[in-house]
Amino acid sequence: MTKPSLDGIFKPQSVAVVGASNRPGNIGREIVHNLIEFEFQGPVFPVNPKLRTLHSLKAYPSVDAIPDPVDLAVIVVPKEQVSTVVEACGRKGVKGLVVITAGFREVGGLGIAREEELASLLNRHGMRMVGPNCMGVINTDPTVRLDASFARTLPITGDIGFMTQSGALGEAILSIASRKGIGFSMFVSVGNKTDVSGNDLLLYWENDPATRVILLYLENFGDPRRFTTIARRITRTKPIVAVKAGRTTAGARAVSSHTGSLAGRDMATDLLLTQCGVLRAASVEELFDLAPAFSMQPPPAGPRVGIVTNAGGPGILATDACVGLGLVVESPSPATRERLAPILHPEASLENPIDLLASGTPEMYGAATRAALDDPAFDALIVIFVPPVMTRSEEVARSIANEAAGSPKPVMVCFMGAEEGVPGVAELRSRGLPVYTFPESAANALAALHTYRQWRDRPDGRVIDMPVDHERAARALESAREAGRDWLTGPEAREVASAARLPVAVARTVRSPAEAMAASVEIGFPLVLKRDGPGSEHKSDSGGVRVGIRNAPDLEAAFHDLGGGIEPLVLMEMIEGGRELILGMIIDPMAGPLLMVGTGGTYVELLRDAVWRIHPLTDLDASEMLRTMTGYPILTGYRGEVAVDTRSVESDLLRLSALVSAFPEIVELDINPYIARPGDGMNRIVDIRIRRETRPGPDQPSSRDPS
Amino acid sequence: MTKPSLDGIFKPQSVAVVGASNRPGNIGREIVHNLIEFEFQGPVFPVNPKLRTLHSLKAYPSVDAIPDPVDLAVIVVPKEQVSTVVEACGRKGVKGLVVITAGFREVGGLGIAREEELASLLNRHGMRMVGPNCMGVINTDPTVRLDASFARTLPITGDIGFMTQSGALGEAILSIASRKGIGFSMFVSVGNKTDVSGNDLLLYWENDPATRVILLYLENFGDPRRFTTIARRITRTKPIVAVKAGRTTAGARAVSSHTGSLAGRDMATDLLLTQCGVLRAASVEELFDLAPAFSMQPPPAGPRVGIVTNAGGPGILATDACVGLGLVVESPSPATRERLAPILHPEASLENPIDLLASGTPEMYGAATRAALDDPAFDALIVIFVPPVMTRSEEVARSIANEAAGSPKPVMVCFMGAEEGVPGVAELRSRGLPVYTFPESAANALAALHTYRQWRDRPDGRVIDMPVDHERAARALESAREAGRDWLTGPEAREVASAARLPVAVARTVRSPAEAMAASVEIGFPLVLKRDGPGSEHKSDSGGVRVGIRNAPDLEAAFHDLGGGIEPLVLMEMIEGGRELILGMIIDPMAGPLLMVGTGGTYVELLRDAVWRIHPLTDLDASEMLRTMTGYPILTGYRGEVAVDTRSVESDLLRLSALVSAFPEIVELDINPYIARPGDGMNRIVDIRIRRETRPGPDQPSSRDPS
Repeated sequence: MTKPSLDGIFKPQSVAVVGASNRPGNIGREIVHNLIEFEFQGPVFPVNPKLRTLHSLKAYPSVDAIPDPVDLAVIVVPKEQVSTVVEACGRKGVKGLVVITAGFREVGGLGIAREEELASLLNRHGMRMVGPNCMGVINTDPTVRLDASFARTLPITGDIGFMTQSGALGEAILSIASRKGIGFSMFVSVGNKTDVSGNDLLLYWENDPATRVILLYLENFGDPRRFTTIARRITRTKPIVAVKAGRTTAGARAVSSHTGSLAGRDMATDLLLTQCGVLRAASVEELFDLAPAFSMQPPPAGPRVGIVTNAGGPGILATDACVGLGLVVESPSPATRERLAPILHPEASLENPIDLLASGTPEMYGAATRAALDDPAFDALIVIFVPPVMTRSEEVARSIANEAAGSPKPVMVCFMGAEEGVPGVAELRSRGLPVYTFPESAANALAALHTYRQWRDRPDGRVIDMPVDHERAARALESAREAGRDWLTGPEAREVASAARLPVAVARTVRSPAEAMAASVEIGFPLVLKRDGPGSEHKSDSGGVRVGIRNAPDLEAAFHDLGGGIEPLVLMEMIEGGRELILGMIIDPMAGPLLMVGTGGTYVELLRDAVWRIHPLTDLDASEMLRTMTGYPILTGYRGEVAVDTRSVESDLLRLSALVSAFPEIVELDINPYIARPGDGMNRIVDIRIRRETRPGPDQPSSRDPS
Repeated sequence: MTKPSLDGIFKPQSVAVVGASNRPGNIGREIVHNLIEFEFQGPVFPVNPKLRTLHSLKAYPSVDAIPDPVDLAVIVVPKEQVSTVVEACGRKGVKGLVVITAGFREVGGLGIAREEELASLLNRHGMRMVGPNCMGVINTDPTVRLDASFARTLPITGDIGFMTQSGALGEAILSIASRKGIGFSMFVSVGNKTDVSGNDLLLYWENDPATRVILLYLENFGDPRRFTTIARRITRTKPIVAVKAGRTTAGARAVSSHTGSLAGRDMATDLLLTQCGVLRAASVEELFDLAPAFSMQPPPAGPRVGIVTNAGGPGILATDACVGLGLVVESPSPATRERLAPILHPEASLENPIDLLASGTPEMYGAATRAALDDPAFDALIVIFVPPVMTRSEEVARSIANEAAGSPKPVMVCFMGAEEGVPGVAELRSRGLPVYTFPESAANALAALHTYRQWRDRPDGRVIDMPVDHERAARALESAREAGRDWLTGPEAREVASAARLPVAVARTVRSPAEAMAASVEIGFPLVLKRDGPGSEHKSDSGGVRVGIRNAPDLEAAFHDLGGGIEPLVLMEMIEGGRELILGMIIDPMAGPLLMVGTGGTYVELLRDAVWRIHPLTDLDASEMLRTMTGYPILTGYRGEVAVDTRSVESDLLRLSALVSAFPEIVELDINPYIARPGDGMNRIVDIRIRRETRPGPDQPSSRDPS
């Protein structure tokens, strides 16, 4: 069943505020005040049986008593009365609810029951709801002008949709945004997300022409897979910037494998956001630095930044920051110098930064801005102004704005020392130019725009349908399950991998010297003999392996040394040469399976050269994973050595991904070492460990938060 | 000759401003205005032959015409007239000068001559000078109250000494500081540093009881070695925080060696600052975050942070930031929970963060702050307040301040969304508590305090006087110099290393099969034969090496294969087992010799596991270098393997340092591989390359900036 639209909440024709009182500081009173103050474009009905009027508005004893239709009800009554009010709203035909009242799931116990009751009432009456336990919603659309929040700051109208999972933070966000001149299309404090989730809002904003940039303050993901799908699509046209609080250690349960030990703190969140093109701000402060840039400026076509300044120091700071963030600060083209030389001071620098000196005039700012924007050597511009004595800040601002406003190249302005209320800053902002106090912030915002541009230009990869012999793998997994084992035995694990056509080295289980001899003939010397039990991880630690066995007597000796006949042993072809890699998979509790490829060898955990992606992998993912490994050059013929077959490594990553898709019960997988060698089809898996678990797969929702 | 004290500049009894006019915007006029406005505690004498009065002060036609003594003259006359005025000041007995006028060394040509003339006038008259080309000096000492700057913002009195190398930035710094309530003891724009340098200021502030924190905005180091010595001493008692603009690539000239290729961008500056305990702020913005923390709060005794909040989200953000910065956020002790449980709301969290909920009262803030400060589980505290509707911000501020002011544990306060001018913030600041808008900034400042504490607690290392056979090394270097070679030959390099008692593997140059046979008997099989010419770097690339030669026929074959008799070949003992390291040295143009130890092996440049220090090394440096290598566990018995002799590696680093001290002409040195093995005295240098250069040594000042 399709749920009703969110228009009932965000574009109501009329609003009732249930539970408003005249007591100063009463939250309902504040909401009514904001509705009036922000000039809601319809009637507002305070509801309170003890009240005749509120803010000169006629008050009603109940929702039912309102003679007119009500689209949206904002509910601030005590928690015990909420369901009665919601019931009344349902009878009245209210379309949307914003429940401010707290005391639901977040307090546990009875609160959970109260929240479940709320959910069923919504369903019964076909209403939509934001909250409970939220601080309200805002829509600045001039035909609506809805500020149904109790924030003390009225919003500025703009093109940013802001979703916050923390109501308390919402207040701070509105106040800081207002000081920085950042405008919103909508602002939603989602509270407990009983009905309207973050994902619902993303979908709503996807089709809202007034919302061009989306900011998220997240504390958890209700439905990370749905989020990924939605966000990946939206970021193709609208940037999403997120702060995510609450860092977790990915795969904390999975430290028993090499793969697990390579997982970084909070890695899954980073992967999840990056893989769908969401920019992660490191702090709330950074969110506010990025917001105006995304809201006001286009992403640059490339990384080359021109810098105009009237002071050397800040110019250097901007250069440092740009270069440190991967942007490029190189000389202007000769034409630009020729054009500017007669206009600027003789001592002015015509390099990059273009330094107008302290005596740089508004005219010089205009000329330099124009010339830099016209210069094909630059993709973007940072204009820095440090107000000296007797400078006409407003005129400098106007000169810059005259040239830069509406430019197809992004322009960041830094008025150092200046901030809100300083002459010129308001004009720059009103003409669509983001203004920063510090050159480093301007550079950081520009770098984020550039990152977003790279994301938009990145082709979509394809999930390749690699063949898996389902029955063969299922049999091996089944045998472990029946034996009550989580870790598969060596033969089981090799069987599963072979079913996915992963290139497992030739291996035979040997229980006697005779079996070993027979197998040696079959495989051929040189050979490796090793223990093969489940849980015999880190084999090189325990001495349970003999390599380079070149003849029958050595084989027999090795068989006895390793406790053959008692311990399970495996005889394998010896893989010589090549480059060691490690491939693996762990399950992140939030993001599901994470796949990894890294530089192998004994010191794999120390070097931590591993690249991760969230399952399933596309062909592009596999290719990028390999190429972003620090050790990648080792594979492609470093220092004149022979290159290994990297295409097969990519294919094997896709095979691994297909295997994980096919068997959600596989919860941990460690291919170490994977030997990449020159020549087609020569790569080999020397060791593979697989852990299975009977658990709800990632596709079967369990007790997770609804999003 | 000891120079006169800087008191004449910073503590004058009287000030003349030479070149002030009545024209609005005239810089001299602004300075006179600031002197009066900031209430300079002595007479101010404007000097201008065309003026009768300025700002109601009697003006004099020249310095000589002033009837009273003049301690300080601030000079703003045109550049051509500066030396005449300085000459007059000398005659008059003026003690200190601040020369604002620009147009000296920074413009080149005639400007350089003008600046040299200035310097000789100062010497002749025994005067001290700040500038030229600066924006002035400030001393907020209540007995002085000198604002001899043309900044538009009057300073707040405080305990921070601020030195800026950028005049333009000075204006911005004062304006931002004032908005953030950051107070200065002194503020100095040093300009061209013709006389008074940054190092002079450090020394002056070292003994100034009013200056407790030192902030530096640096663009270059005049005398890095003197800076290091001075700063290392001062940071034991007063924190120094620096922003350094103008990043350079260390050792850009030295990329011909492995060592050189491992040097990072701007590494030398980081090393230089870190090794003398100076905290490097990544941006001007961060400088302003750290300043109030260092100014107002003591460093914490340890890394354990208690967090008090009235909103979950910001509490999580603070936790994330703390943990990400190496601080520890763990549970309060049971006593704290018992103490707070009856006072706080039943739903309040008594974990860490301690969450008072949105309804947290001023009394709760007081109780939680007190309890957390009393809790031995915490070394420091972050108190976060997100103002909800109807909260008494001032009372919350007062409650926090009542408990936290003067605490021996540092307390950072975050008033989210709030900033200057918001009720409560001013009170917190006036009572010595740093206030931040964002929890991440508070966490960052606390982490910096913790870093500083660790520095203060770190013992001084000792430079050990390792023996070097000076004559023997000199002979080898001499032979290269005479042959006009920069790169030493293999035998020469091994000779130099042996002279420093570095453990060079046994090696013999062999020119014929017969010589090879003879040497093989002397050294003993197995052997390594390789080419040994200068510049045969990256030997493993070129195939110029045969390892594992185990008998005479193999040796003879190898000799011919490698072109023996034509190419210079060396026969060496074969070092089996052990761990490959790389040791090396490059010269940084700014910081002098940099020494390095890193994980070796074929992929050394890819893995970039190298640790650097500035020469000379102390015993503590050598020990820390080894221990901070990512690959360090490989040396100490990783995964049950045998540990190698790390003490000998440390000694060899000190020997290397001693060699570099003894021979400034050694400008590049690459020990690769250095094989560390188990057992005393078993480590071996397999290959060493040395480059020499006839150049002014780092101890012979050349054309560098005077500091």
